[in-house]
Amino acid sequence: MMHPLRRFLFLLLVGLLPAAVWSLAPPRFPRPQPRSRPGVNGVGDYEYETRYFRQRLDHFSFPGVGDEDEAAAFFQQRYLVGRGGGWAGPGGPIFFYCGNEGDIAWFAANSGLVWEAAPRFAALIVFAEAIHRYYGESMPFGSKAKAYNDSKSLAYLTAEQALADFAVLLTDLKRNLTAEGSPVVLFGGSYGGMLAAWMRLKYPHIAIGALASSAPILQFEDIVPSTIFYDLVSDDFRRESLSCFLTIKDSWKELDDQGNEQDGLLKLSKTFHLCQTLKTSGDLSDWLSSAYSYLAMVDYPIPSEFLMPLPANPIKEVCINIDSQPEGTSTLERIYAGVNVYYNYTGTVGCFDLTDDPHGMGGWDWQACTEMVMPMSYSEGRSMYPPYKFDYPSYAEDCIKSYGVRPRPRWITTEFGGHNITKVLEKFGSNIIFFNGLLDPWSGGGVLKNISESVIAIVAPLGAHHIDLRPATPDDPDWLVALRESELKIISGWLSDYYGAGGALFQPVADKGSSSS
Amino acid sequence: MMHPLRRFLFLLLVGLLPAAVWSLAPPRFPRPQPRSRPGVNGVGDYEYETRYFRQRLDHFSFPGVGDEDEAAAFFQQRYLVGRGGGWAGPGGPIFFYCGNEGDIAWFAANSGLVWEAAPRFAALIVFAEAIHRYYGESMPFGSKAKAYNDSKSLAYLTAEQALADFAVLLTDLKRNLTAEGSPVVLFGGSYGGMLAAWMRLKYPHIAIGALASSAPILQFEDIVPSTIFYDLVSDDFRRESLSCFLTIKDSWKELDDQGNEQDGLLKLSKTFHLCQTLKTSGDLSDWLSSAYSYLAMVDYPIPSEFLMPLPANPIKEVCINIDSQPEGTSTLERIYAGVNVYYNYTGTVGCFDLTDDPHGMGGWDWQACTEMVMPMSYSEGRSMYPPYKFDYPSYAEDCIKSYGVRPRPRWITTEFGGHNITKVLEKFGSNIIFFNGLLDPWSGGGVLKNISESVIAIVAPLGAHHIDLRPATPDDPDWLVALRESELKIISGWLSDYYGAGGALFQPVADKGSSSS
Repeated sequence: MMHPLRRFLFLLLVGLLPAAVWSLAPPRFPRPQPRSRPGVNGVGDYEYETRYFRQRLDHFSFPGVGDEDEAAAFFQQRYLVGRGGGWAGPGGPIFFYCGNEGDIAWFAANSGLVWEAAPRFAALIVFAEAIHRYYGESMPFGSKAKAYNDSKSLAYLTAEQALADFAVLLTDLKRNLTAEGSPVVLFGGSYGGMLAAWMRLKYPHIAIGALASSAPILQFEDIVPSTIFYDLVSDDFRRESLSCFLTIKDSWKELDDQGNEQDGLLKLSKTFHLCQTLKTSGDLSDWLSSAYSYLAMVDYPIPSEFLMPLPANPIKEVCINIDSQPEGTSTLERIYAGVNVYYNYTGTVGCFDLTDDPHGMGGWDWQACTEMVMPMSYSEGRSMYPPYKFDYPSYAEDCIKSYGVRPRPRWITTEFGGHNITKVLEKFGSNIIFFNGLLDPWSGGGVLKNISESVIAIVAPLGAHHIDLRPATPDDPDWLVALRESELKIISGWLSDYYGAGGALFQPVADKGSSSS
Repeated sequence: MMHPLRRFLFLLLVGLLPAAVWSLAPPRFPRPQPRSRPGVNGVGDYEYETRYFRQRLDHFSFPGVGDEDEAAAFFQQRYLVGRGGGWAGPGGPIFFYCGNEGDIAWFAANSGLVWEAAPRFAALIVFAEAIHRYYGESMPFGSKAKAYNDSKSLAYLTAEQALADFAVLLTDLKRNLTAEGSPVVLFGGSYGGMLAAWMRLKYPHIAIGALASSAPILQFEDIVPSTIFYDLVSDDFRRESLSCFLTIKDSWKELDDQGNEQDGLLKLSKTFHLCQTLKTSGDLSDWLSSAYSYLAMVDYPIPSEFLMPLPANPIKEVCINIDSQPEGTSTLERIYAGVNVYYNYTGTVGCFDLTDDPHGMGGWDWQACTEMVMPMSYSEGRSMYPPYKFDYPSYAEDCIKSYGVRPRPRWITTEFGGHNITKVLEKFGSNIIFFNGLLDPWSGGGVLKNISESVIAIVAPLGAHHIDLRPATPDDPDWLVALRESELKIISGWLSDYYGAGGALFQPVADKGSSSS
């Protein structure tokens, strides 16, 4: 297992690193899959209009008029407006999806709930693929190359700016639609869920409530143990099979040992069907670890194409493959049989290219090196990884070397809170649903307990990463259908409260029966 | 009466304008008086230690490490820590005054309540003269000249940055004092009151409550009528004497007419004992209007030296002077007799220098030209001024001409809300006291009604600008003593709630009897 610093140095040495492209060892949120095909699982079946909004690069300072005229002071932010949702018109609800660090295929796969629920509330859908600046098409400075050029051009890629983007866009949109009285409900999953929750906390006047799905807003500093993420990944594997868990746990040393043997890297490359010979066994470790993390995030009870085309309960499938090899199969051959489920479920991959990271590099690495510092360790007992303790100095050093930027590890909690969140939000928050699936390793940083009557935690013991937001399918288990209904019922309550208080012109068309189940 | 644009153009023409120094017609908040002497009214009797905190110039972006090393990325923010307050120690309360657009004399005159109340709660006082960046000694770029050089250097003079300053400073301070469990109570008056309220709204995890005194957080866009400020000024004069009100109302035309006569400006200059001959009668109108506005703000029932050395009930004194002149005294001579109370109560001024603006020019003008756009008009019926309708285009044009910056008139309500504040704060706010004195023209933009059980409006019909915060004096009327006690009782309740919930180590030393009355 390669530690972050080692991995970074290795990547530097082998020259794989364009200026702003490298990977931190901490896990990322799921990211869009270039291979995902629209149309599967309902993905991409939604109709929308693409619009652009002239957004300010820096909401928190004031450029001179001369500088303001420069193209760099603004960028075109893409947003999508749903079609055919049967919006009630001005005064009717607006469902607003807070865009993530992702691109269009991802948002579509991610947001079925919003599309499917909107007609029941006669809500306008405003969407939000690449609404987060610096992602998708919403590039400052005119192009991704320019936006990602250096720390100067990346300086405005922050959550605070993104939230202000949402506030300005929504305010302007409502004014243009003469819909100032329209209640806005926010949706978001993963990092987008964090943004939805923070949006509600920082801009309660902009939206009446937020569904924050799988939003690890507590994964900062020492609020939750730094080991929790990988412990939960490990739990997911142990839950399926202790022998599977133990095989993985044993594999790291074998992998390292074999890597150190003569021709070991060649052997490893053959065992794992790699296209190119490994330069270091750590590269392979990272590839495997990455698969386990993503598998835990998308351990859905139904087939999905969210990250990779995957069967239902993919971890179970991985473990079956690991466990069911004939006696005498080596640990590493078992491991290969397992990850094959993740990287090659369709069976179409001839060899694996470790440098071909389908999740891409990008803005999140910068964000992790600036404000989104989420400490990650491997625990000694519970995890299936070799022990590792998060080491902030070397983390910071990596960031300085690769991005020329120094992280501010305490900024997020200063800006958004997190410590004592129960006490803070009990009196000072309302209308937030925190959904978490306990199979999802990000649930370790989530809000898992009700905070007040209207700041609600919905927890699905068998759910994975924002499963609630995914498009409904005929195979959805009952608990999933039921929890989506619970969420919509709560949202319906927010809207009733709002309209009951005389906030708008229209009554929502609520609870016409479930169209999502 | 000169309209903003005319005044600006005039000032340009006569060449009085250094680059970043000019005056918008909209009234300013009271500002420190170089003539104020510490030691009067208890002012300056408080002991404190001056400290400095290395503060980030821009909280919302990330400079490269190279740029970060430059001095410009940080500045030294001054803050004051009270001495001898008998702080209970780590876990004990911290009273934090949110600094204004002002300097040290002002804060001291402004904050008696905080100093006097702190010992009752065994609270640490953290104070905050020039804690607002770009004021007092807290200058980015090393000097006021450099900080105020142009729109580039002024770009970071915003309320959002100031709030983040407070959050970072408080978080760091508590950590250094091992006082993470200490509840923070915010205080602020005027613009500082707006910051205190916004701080509570945006950073509820940093402080448990806020006393926002005379904070016109609704004085934006169309939330309150743009005429309300000058209507309230006018009401204050009419309340004392209808003939006084009418004399002032008549004076503008006489002043203009006389200014247009041959030798009229010379005559006016003599009537008003000016050191130099007027260049335009508008200059005199502004001087008079400014006096009326400030008089209304500081129309205290006790003598004060807050803006100028003034008697108790100064508007009454002004009106007595205006009304009591012998028959045959001209309108303008009466006006002179009146404003003499304001500009020369001590009788030591030989002649008046209109260019010697004791309130100084400075950051607030920039703030008014960027985010703090408070529309101001003169009404036709109720006011004692000639009708004038706020004209945003010319306002913006002035800002572009003088600062090279374009205002964002809707940004404050986008960022902080304001529309429908009752509805927003009812569910989404707690522990704020909004104090307003109804004689204070800024009360027109204040929160005057209770919003919830813990977002409380305290209104003093006979109070002026943040009179509650002023140091107690033996002459304070009973209602003032009583309302200060009400405020402290509410704050005491916040602290009890906090400690009752097991939030800290110490019990506050509360209600040992009133030391401020």
